[in-house]
Amino acid sequence: MSLTSDQQHELKELTSQKFSTKRPTVPALEEILYEPLKVLDHGFVRVVDYMGDDAAIVQAARVSYGKGTKKVNEDRGLIRYLMRHWHSTPFEMCEIKFHIKVPIFIARQWIRHRTANVNEYSARYSVMDKEFYIPAAENLAVQSASNRQGRGEVLTGKDAERVLKLLKEDAEQVYDHYEEMLNPEGTALARELARMNLTLNYYTQWYWKIDLHNLMHFLRLRADGHAQYEIREYANVMIDVLKKWVPITHESFLDYRQNAQNLSAQAFTVIKRMIAGEKVTEESSGLTKREWAELQATLGETDA
Amino acid sequence: MSLTSDQQHELKELTSQKFSTKRPTVPALEEILYEPLKVLDHGFVRVVDYMGDDAAIVQAARVSYGKGTKKVNEDRGLIRYLMRHWHSTPFEMCEIKFHIKVPIFIARQWIRHRTANVNEYSARYSVMDKEFYIPAAENLAVQSASNRQGRGEVLTGKDAERVLKLLKEDAEQVYDHYEEMLNPEGTALARELARMNLTLNYYTQWYWKIDLHNLMHFLRLRADGHAQYEIREYANVMIDVLKKWVPITHESFLDYRQNAQNLSAQAFTVIKRMIAGEKVTEESSGLTKREWAELQATLGETDA
Amino acid sequence: MSLTSDQQHELKELTSQKFSTKRPTVPALEEILYEPLKVLDHGFVRVVDYMGDDAAIVQAARVSYGKGTKKVNEDRGLIRYLMRHWHSTPFEMCEIKFHIKVPIFIARQWIRHRTANVNEYSARYSVMDKEFYIPAAENLAVQSASNRQGRGEVLTGKDAERVLKLLKEDAEQVYDHYEEMLNPEGTALARELARMNLTLNYYTQWYWKIDLHNLMHFLRLRADGHAQYEIREYANVMIDVLKKWVPITHESFLDYRQNAQNLSAQAFTVIKRMIAGEKVTEESSGLTKREWAELQATLGETDA
Amino acid sequence: MSLTSDQQHELKELTSQKFSTKRPTVPALEEILYEPLKVLDHGFVRVVDYMGDDAAIVQAARVSYGKGTKKVNEDRGLIRYLMRHWHSTPFEMCEIKFHIKVPIFIARQWIRHRTANVNEYSARYSVMDKEFYIPAAENLAVQSASNRQGRGEVLTGKDAERVLKLLKEDAEQVYDHYEEMLNPEGTALARELARMNLTLNYYTQWYWKIDLHNLMHFLRLRADGHAQYEIREYANVMIDVLKKWVPITHESFLDYRQNAQNLSAQAFTVIKRMIAGEKVTEESSGLTKREWAELQATLGETDA
Repeated sequence: MSLTSDQQHELKELTSQKFSTKRPTVPALEEILYEPLKVLDHGFVRVVDYMGDDAAIVQAARVSYGKGTKKVNEDRGLIRYLMRHWHSTPFEMCEIKFHIKVPIFIARQWIRHRTANVNEYSARYSVMDKEFYIPAAENLAVQSASNRQGRGEVLTGKDAERVLKLLKEDAEQVYDHYEEMLNPEGTALARELARMNLTLNYYTQWYWKIDLHNLMHFLRLRADGHAQYEIREYANVMIDVLKKWVPITHESFLDYRQNAQNLSAQAFTVIKRMIAGEKVTEESSGLTKREWAELQATLGETDA
Repeated sequence: MSLTSDQQHELKELTSQKFSTKRPTVPALEEILYEPLKVLDHGFVRVVDYMGDDAAIVQAARVSYGKGTKKVNEDRGLIRYLMRHWHSTPFEMCEIKFHIKVPIFIARQWIRHRTANVNEYSARYSVMDKEFYIPAAENLAVQSASNRQGRGEVLTGKDAERVLKLLKEDAEQVYDHYEEMLNPEGTALARELARMNLTLNYYTQWYWKIDLHNLMHFLRLRADGHAQYEIREYANVMIDVLKKWVPITHESFLDYRQNAQNLSAQAFTVIKRMIAGEKVTEESSGLTKREWAELQATLGETDA
Repeated sequence: MSLTSDQQHELKELTSQKFSTKRPTVPALEEILYEPLKVLDHGFVRVVDYMGDDAAIVQAARVSYGKGTKKVNEDRGLIRYLMRHWHSTPFEMCEIKFHIKVPIFIARQWIRHRTANVNEYSARYSVMDKEFYIPAAENLAVQSASNRQGRGEVLTGKDAERVLKLLKEDAEQVYDHYEEMLNPEGTALARELARMNLTLNYYTQWYWKIDLHNLMHFLRLRADGHAQYEIREYANVMIDVLKKWVPITHESFLDYRQNAQNLSAQAFTVIKRMIAGEKVTEESSGLTKREWAELQATLGETDA
Repeated sequence: MSLTSDQQHELKELTSQKFSTKRPTVPALEEILYEPLKVLDHGFVRVVDYMGDDAAIVQAARVSYGKGTKKVNEDRGLIRYLMRHWHSTPFEMCEIKFHIKVPIFIARQWIRHRTANVNEYSARYSVMDKEFYIPAAENLAVQSASNRQGRGEVLTGKDAERVLKLLKEDAEQVYDHYEEMLNPEGTALARELARMNLTLNYYTQWYWKIDLHNLMHFLRLRADGHAQYEIREYANVMIDVLKKWVPITHESFLDYRQNAQNLSAQAFTVIKRMIAGEKVTEESSGLTKREWAELQATLGETDA
């Protein structure tokens, strides 16, 4: 992700803006406003606007005429209560707008979250930039043997070289042909057709706006270990943004969502037997092999 | 709508806030931020936060790295083009949050718009205020004879007095009983039960947050002559807010939505025959009686 | 809930229909199709249409050209896997349509779920029936002392009598006045105005259509012990419908949603310490008083 | 689009199903249920399930206990009234589920409609088929000179040959490399990574379920002349499905949406001056050059 001098100029202009407002304002977020936060090789996440803060959640929950906030401690208790009991509407009262640059095959996963507003760069209207994603060596993995939609060991040596060579050369070639097809002196093919020749690792861009409740839902699913590595990278950067924007909500998100455990009725019964001192085995647990393995992993994974 | 001294104090505190921000800021809207704009006898609309401005629509439409705006004239042309061609996503990039006080029977119409975020005052958790809506004399109308869901002439004299007396006395009585049932020294009935004794003209309150595209959709339907008078009053106040917030969008909303005409295939064919100089009658129009009447009204209604 | 003879006739006509279809069909659900399932004193839930079955979930999850189903056992395993890992889209592939009669104060809670399609009886267009909800004696409870939005002990004796008398008499009176105001020989007030005089325990009706995923989300929240008794009654009837319609999904809903436990990061750490044999107390738990109480309740509540 | 013998077998099995149901059933739609309707070179649209019919719209609009239908003529009048006055909720009471095969670059436009349920074939989980879209000769067009997101003249001769050769060869090559990277004997790259090497004209598949109101909104936008040719082809096939499913709604959709004219306040004023016999010119119209041209086109385009 290298900025053109035009972009550097535009960025400077935006970040030096200074307006007076009566709206809730978050200094920690203002500091990184408009700044591109790098993700993958050419991608980024930029916060371009936001509405509300931790106090705005409290104010909405209390349908308050004024600020509606009380002591920090009481406000924190209320936010944690709302999160714990799935009272989602107060969190919907905050909103954030991002400018995001992401490879198309990841954008296709991303867009499945329908509760956001999206405005994407149009390849019917404009020419796509020549920027495509090539995984870093340490992220080039073989198909997992146990998980049909996961990765196994890292590829190394000639295998890795071969893959990188294919990805790179094909991306270069399809772009050369894309340009050739678009050439106004040549075939001058319509942009909306020529774009179909690009590979799915080409970067696209969009403005993406979402409320805080739905953002956390997105982050919980996409920062999860089952999500594809590439989208997790974006989710992790956005969780850092969350921390700057709404620190109390961020903390309760970690406690009640990201690091929480959802146990089935059966698994919870096993847990209770264990607490009562019983030595439960896979056989005596009544769980399926898979659920037993998942429970074992759960009991092990958050050990200090 | 009279504010308590507590509310006046809170209002003063909010309106005297002053923060520094890099975000798009609209001075004309800042001026009325937090101010209750009176609607009906005890209702109000208050803007409590907003995100974006006319330029933010342009910026999103261009998926711009910087401001994305050009000359005012070009930006205006783009906004009008987007509106005319139903490109809704750039308008979704602006968001506004209201605090609204509205009679329950109107709140029930309002909530049917599902694309907003809502946090309502809870009558399970809190005691309802003693505030109910009584129509002004000039809005007390008989059932329309021609339109099953509309109003006819205004009620006058003893009929009007009788209606106002019934509405007022019943609202007073049900609240007295509500209070009696809640009385901790008496029956101390649960709030979530006692509330069922209130009439539908009692006021409720909510925080209501919506994006600009969906707000305009709401306003088009609810400021329309077919909408109930009481909700139109809210819509009209909000259209004034729209004008302060996003003046160019407001103008194109009037031109392409609120004052635009949607003509059926058949009606448009009639229009073309008229333009060609033909004297079209109801019989020769091929329209149904109702559609012919609607077309005649349309052709008459915007006459200077 | 007593049916008029017209309604009985209509019901008979509908339930004796017999068409031939190639669509997935669920005999157990067909049996109760159109039948009003009684809820509260005058309310009901009626299934009026449905789309899909357990197999349709499997078929969609596999984006199958044909039926997509395998052995019952494999299909069950897949449905449980999807539920466990929050893969919601295949469950969205089933849809159900209800006709529901419910008191207005409960309808107002219900409508907050925005992911359904709703068509409500219009009190602008039609006259409301004289049917209102009066709680059964055993559901008349005092305000909870510990929970601001809950119920405590049951009211008895004169207190109960007084409440029932007030609720009944006020509902009777406001309806008398509603009728008087509507009277075409008298004031003939517009229906859209007269309705505001009714109390919130009057019944309304709507058609309510929702996909299976969002239905389960609704049921999880509204069958929960924190939900108001009256809406829980509806949720419980609908969970019975779920069992007839999609029995495998119903079972996994119970196991992974309704009877599952969501434990915070902190609570889960305590659980692990307990399993390791440690005697954890409120003090040593690191939990707040409230969370400790909730955890204790959780550990106790599903004991056989 | 050629079916494998497995698919032919599965199709035969599905279309020979015969169940008895009390649900509204549409014989004309049952006839094509499960049948792949060909679109482009390898794509298809298949109806795999549906809920409701024209009568179900009427029934919901009347929140009816029974069928709710009256004479065909009255029902038709009601449906046309609902459509004309943008009463969308009754149309939401019908639902349809499609299985669709579509090139990825078109799928990316399609998915922008967020009001549908989608379950897409997973290229993380499964290997993509070797099927890609190559435009037919008559759809290979140059970039429009006047419309930045449109097509101009058809490409011919060597230019067309060159484009087809590039598209075809690149698609072949990236698939060869995709297979090589996946090869379990070779690099065995994870599927979720290897897929990024495919070009955007590869076909994907999904189950897509939507209510009738939102389907018509989709069709109005995507069958429009401004939409890309390839997605219009899908929309047109689906409009044929609409006609079989809900013929009265289909007719009113054509009259009040697809063939209707939406005129701005300014354009309508011009129309009225024309009807009054005035000879209005671009100069005297007060319209911008672009809007004047659009109005002229509108007045000409539906001439018989």
